[in-house]
Amino acid sequence: MKLHHCVGARSFRPLWALEALGLPYELAMLPFPPRVHAKEYFAVNPLGTIPLFEDGDTRMTESAAICEYLAARHGAGTLGLRPDDAEYGRYLNALHFGEATLTFPQTLVLRYGRFEPPERRNPGLVEDYARWFLSRLKGFGAVLGDRRFVCAGRFTAADISVGYALMLAEFAGLGDQLPDFARTYWKGLKAEPSYARALAAERQAAEAQGVSPVPSPLGG
Amino acid sequence: MKLHHCVGARSFRPLWALEALGLPYELAMLPFPPRVHAKEYFAVNPLGTIPLFEDGDTRMTESAAICEYLAARHGAGTLGLRPDDAEYGRYLNALHFGEATLTFPQTLVLRYGRFEPPERRNPGLVEDYARWFLSRLKGFGAVLGDRRFVCAGRFTAADISVGYALMLAEFAGLGDQLPDFARTYWKGLKAEPSYARALAAERQAAEAQGVSPVPSPLGG
Repeated sequence: MKLHHCVGARSFRPLWALEALGLPYELAMLPFPPRVHAKEYFAVNPLGTIPLFEDGDTRMTESAAICEYLAARHGAGTLGLRPDDAEYGRYLNALHFGEATLTFPQTLVLRYGRFEPPERRNPGLVEDYARWFLSRLKGFGAVLGDRRFVCAGRFTAADISVGYALMLAEFAGLGDQLPDFARTYWKGLKAEPSYARALAAERQAAEAQGVSPVPSPLGG
Repeated sequence: MKLHHCVGARSFRPLWALEALGLPYELAMLPFPPRVHAKEYFAVNPLGTIPLFEDGDTRMTESAAICEYLAARHGAGTLGLRPDDAEYGRYLNALHFGEATLTFPQTLVLRYGRFEPPERRNPGLVEDYARWFLSRLKGFGAVLGDRRFVCAGRFTAADISVGYALMLAEFAGLGDQLPDFARTYWKGLKAEPSYARALAAERQAAEAQGVSPVPSPLGG
């Protein structure tokens, strides 16, 4: 298995899942964004986006989908839930929600607040989508209640999906605005040993491959 | 099972999946957006977003996740792929891609091109995200090749996920810019009998419940 990754990007999700499952993998580091700084990457992934994950003939580009795939195909019952589990719907919903609903508004906050040249920045838009993110996150709080994990009383790919959205919120300068429940939940996820292993694997691979270890969030 | 739905919104995905599987369900229609025109809906779904899907104790709000759930839990092998299928990764990737990557840029095109009051519209942003959508769609074309369906040579929830993004492109005024492969693919999906049944179910429920049958795309 091979994962193409930029430090701090959404591809951190599958990296974390690989470490949580203890699977062997190759980590190919790229400068961010590869479509600007590593144009040869287009030959590997015509979308130019991060992540790209390869497992035999399987090629995947959606970070939450890769985590789900790893859990279902290589997880032997850990990290995922099976369709007959009572909380299967809860698992799938949070897995999708972490990316489709909690991550996209933040890409706008980053793009129009930081990445675009000053004349193209848009503080109104940044505020619209920071508020949008925080409102959806509040909704997630109502679903989470006082649980430590999203579902099944254990750490799953759904936690990785939502957890990365909280990691990104810190990168995006929204850390101070996170509600208390989100800080507590995220602190609990960071205590998972696989989180530290994923960070260490990322740092070591960046150093070995001559890529800056400074997080460059986003990805495609 | 009960689905809360607005005509033309993302909740069309689970409606289509329910019709494809021939399952019994209740369809609760709402004016769009419910958070403005049906404030009582907040008591049912604190997020205020569409869809909300209920199946016993299971409550879900992510349209692509609901399709995946229906296929895995109630599909008896149809409409979904199992983890040991050779194309399982391909299936999951397109299922997530249809929403997380192909739908969100269009919500910006609609919001800042049509839904916001004139003084808050933003033609530059609309152009940025129309281009973003078309570029990601082109990448999907490379993955699809000349297949009629995303995977396994048959109609699945992954086609529903991507298909709705193409339906939304027509609502969003991007229909003229769709590449040829996307028109052909979308025409093939619309030929599925379940598509016509889902449209008919939506229209009948809207009339019976006194909701405008005019599509009001988006949803939460």
